Amino acid sequence: MSRPKPLSGFPEFLPAGRIVEQRVLDMLRETFELHGFASIETRAVETMESLTRKGDITKEVYVVRRLHAAEGETGDDLGLHFDLTVPFARYVLENSGHLAFPFRRYQIQKVWRGERPQEGRYREFVQADIDIVGEASLAKHHDVEVVLVMLEALERLHTELGLPPVTIHVNNRLLAEGFYRGLGVDDHLAVLQRVDKLDKIGADAVGRLLTTELGLSDDAAAKCLALARITAADDSFVAAVRAIGVEHPLLDEGLDALAEVVRAAATVAPGRVVADLKIARGLDYYTGTVYETSLQGYENLGSICSGGRYDSLATDGRTTFPGVGISVGVTRILGVLIGKGRLTASRSVPTCVLVAVDNEESRPASLAIAARLRARGISTEVAPKADKFGRQIRYADRRGIPFVWFADGSVKDIRSGEQAQADPATWTPPAVDLRPTVSYQA
Amino acid sequence: MSRPKPLSGFPEFLPAGRIVEQRVLDMLRETFELHGFASIETRAVETMESLTRKGDITKEVYVVRRLHAAEGETGDDLGLHFDLTVPFARYVLENSGHLAFPFRRYQIQKVWRGERPQEGRYREFVQADIDIVGEASLAKHHDVEVVLVMLEALERLHTELGLPPVTIHVNNRLLAEGFYRGLGVDDHLAVLQRVDKLDKIGADAVGRLLTTELGLSDDAAAKCLALARITAADDSFVAAVRAIGVEHPLLDEGLDALAEVVRAAATVAPGRVVADLKIARGLDYYTGTVYETSLQGYENLGSICSGGRYDSLATDGRTTFPGVGISVGVTRILGVLIGKGRLTASRSVPTCVLVAVDNEESRPASLAIAARLRARGISTEVAPKADKFGRQIRYADRRGIPFVWFADGSVKDIRSGEQAQADPATWTPPAVDLRPTVSYQA
Repeated sequence: MSRPKPLSGFPEFLPAGRIVEQRVLDMLRETFELHGFASIETRAVETMESLTRKGDITKEVYVVRRLHAAEGETGDDLGLHFDLTVPFARYVLENSGHLAFPFRRYQIQKVWRGERPQEGRYREFVQADIDIVGEASLAKHHDVEVVLVMLEALERLHTELGLPPVTIHVNNRLLAEGFYRGLGVDDHLAVLQRVDKLDKIGADAVGRLLTTELGLSDDAAAKCLALARITAADDSFVAAVRAIGVEHPLLDEGLDALAEVVRAAATVAPGRVVADLKIARGLDYYTGTVYETSLQGYENLGSICSGGRYDSLATDGRTTFPGVGISVGVTRILGVLIGKGRLTASRSVPTCVLVAVDNEESRPASLAIAARLRARGISTEVAPKADKFGRQIRYADRRGIPFVWFADGSVKDIRSGEQAQADPATWTPPAVDLRPTVSYQA
Repeated sequence: MSRPKPLSGFPEFLPAGRIVEQRVLDMLRETFELHGFASIETRAVETMESLTRKGDITKEVYVVRRLHAAEGETGDDLGLHFDLTVPFARYVLENSGHLAFPFRRYQIQKVWRGERPQEGRYREFVQADIDIVGEASLAKHHDVEVVLVMLEALERLHTELGLPPVTIHVNNRLLAEGFYRGLGVDDHLAVLQRVDKLDKIGADAVGRLLTTELGLSDDAAAKCLALARITAADDSFVAAVRAIGVEHPLLDEGLDALAEVVRAAATVAPGRVVADLKIARGLDYYTGTVYETSLQGYENLGSICSGGRYDSLATDGRTTFPGVGISVGVTRILGVLIGKGRLTASRSVPTCVLVAVDNEESRPASLAIAARLRARGISTEVAPKADKFGRQIRYADRRGIPFVWFADGSVKDIRSGEQAQADPATWTPPAVDLRPTVSYQA
């Protein structure tokens, strides 16, 4: 077997990169659990029927078949899930009798898409989702809640690991719908569809589409564009919208809901959440609040964290389950930051101490020291070979292990060269050295 | 969408079961990391070429293809990995220039096999592997090490969560090879192959195979069977083998190596590791120590944890990478124990405290209390609705949340009914209530 090559679109980390990923996932999990979200994991496969229900994404599905499937064995036509929402909706329906609603879950798993790989776009990647789903109804304050929980999680990555800060862009579909209806437009989705192209084709082109394709007056088209241009990190956007002079009850409802999100977010992390009235996030799915997120300095990655309110996450014909959720593309962020060497771990192993071995006969003594350190929560290895001490120190150095423990009862910080007598029953490394640290260099 | 049905062989846990699984995986990870094993994750797919190299397992592979693969797009014929050893071997070859050897890694991931589902056999399941791999050579003491690390991990599941204890059965392929060669048999694998059927077809039938198919004398066949019957939790097996009166240098080597494992294990957890001289674990792969593990009371599950020494985990033509590893079938254990209701979590959510809401106007006050508790590491939810207190208590009760915090500044243990004034800046739940507990009922 010659040296295999990486598969494009299927990123794998070296051990130090994996330590970074683990730290990030641990922090996400910790934050989600602090807020009472329960973990679930769903199987990697769903039926093709359930994966292809939303037509748009079918081209990206990976189909899964047994190599030696029996002739005519077609009952279970399966594909790998391309997100965590379709599996979650299925899980909720399948287990609704055993779940307590509103049901708060987080889910951190790989998903697969047969897309053309490019920076920040992978064929296999990790997503971390939180959703709250109700039975028949779900209070609106959960729209505020999920974005604040996710913001808290992303803010920890910023303050504790040094990742760039995020900006979460929020809009509300009722606001746009009400505004368009207030302008006398019935087919509000058609307007939204065209306004959604603003970043791609520019305001002039969108204005032309609105007047020529949809027959809006120049004035109405201008107002739609004015609405889309409004953005604010506080509730001043409400006055800006009012100033355009359009009125509709749905517009009021949307403005209230969006103002609530922005005001609440400002108290948690000022400036991080902005009302951005051009955000649409697809057309058929979301029905209220929508979220999109940019990572400062990496805006070219697109949205790293998106979601929104859907009035029908799932339905079994009798009961409808509305939900609100938000999903962070962990690999989209880490693939780039780790790949560029911006986000690094201080070592490639969990090990804090290497216990040296004088000679193979005294290995049991070294093992005993290691066991005493581990019993106190200190990750410890024993040198694989009774080599010259220089080589044993090099073993530690290559891996970034900070301390070497010698048979004479001394422990050496191999970075500073400092060496002192120590007792494995009481010696404690500096807190910063106990585990690998993760840090970001701009 | 009507209620979907589970897919046979693809187990999914309800939230409380998932809490059990998370606790078990956390304990495995913690133990592996304390011993300096670094985590890696590999992509779910490997090339079909690499998956089908070992002929035996090809029937179980799931092939993966893009639904809309371009005509003639065959370059990347992919399948889901069926274990973590094939991907690890490929990862080692692919990254050998960036890894420090001996390389210690653990890997906890799902694997997929298109097998017929039955109790303890799944189509998708989680494995947790540890391996140590050397470049060109790997010291024998690592054979002892990996089994002791895994034993420590499994023993924690026993002592901390109450799972049944395990018995790890160990043998050494050199021992059997030396013994058969000492008997004058050249084709030692042929003997091993037949002796391996002992549990299935019985001693008499194996004896007949050895004499009729391989031409062994009745005496030689009897000695092979005598060897296979030897089992001991200490090094007394050495004398038992010696008493049969066969001699060969490889036999000596195997006896020494096996005695070392058993003696070392006896000091860590007496009785848990037994020399069992009938264990073979497949024929072509392992070259030294081999491990198999039974779970007390669940012997019908077969081996829940297996592995061994392989002189060539991988080779790129120039360098060979020998390894030793052991793999625990997490889902094989948990699928049954959780499924039968033996292993349970004390609640279905991470939440320790529910903050009640008097009325929707005072929700911000409840949110503030929750934030203060979370800042101190206490998982907290706020009631979704300003309902009657009885309903809010029922919300907590249905999920097993032990404490409800009221706006009057009192906190109630809803199990005992005890209620007292408390300050969110200082109140601390009993340690046992901070997180869900996991316990086993026989």
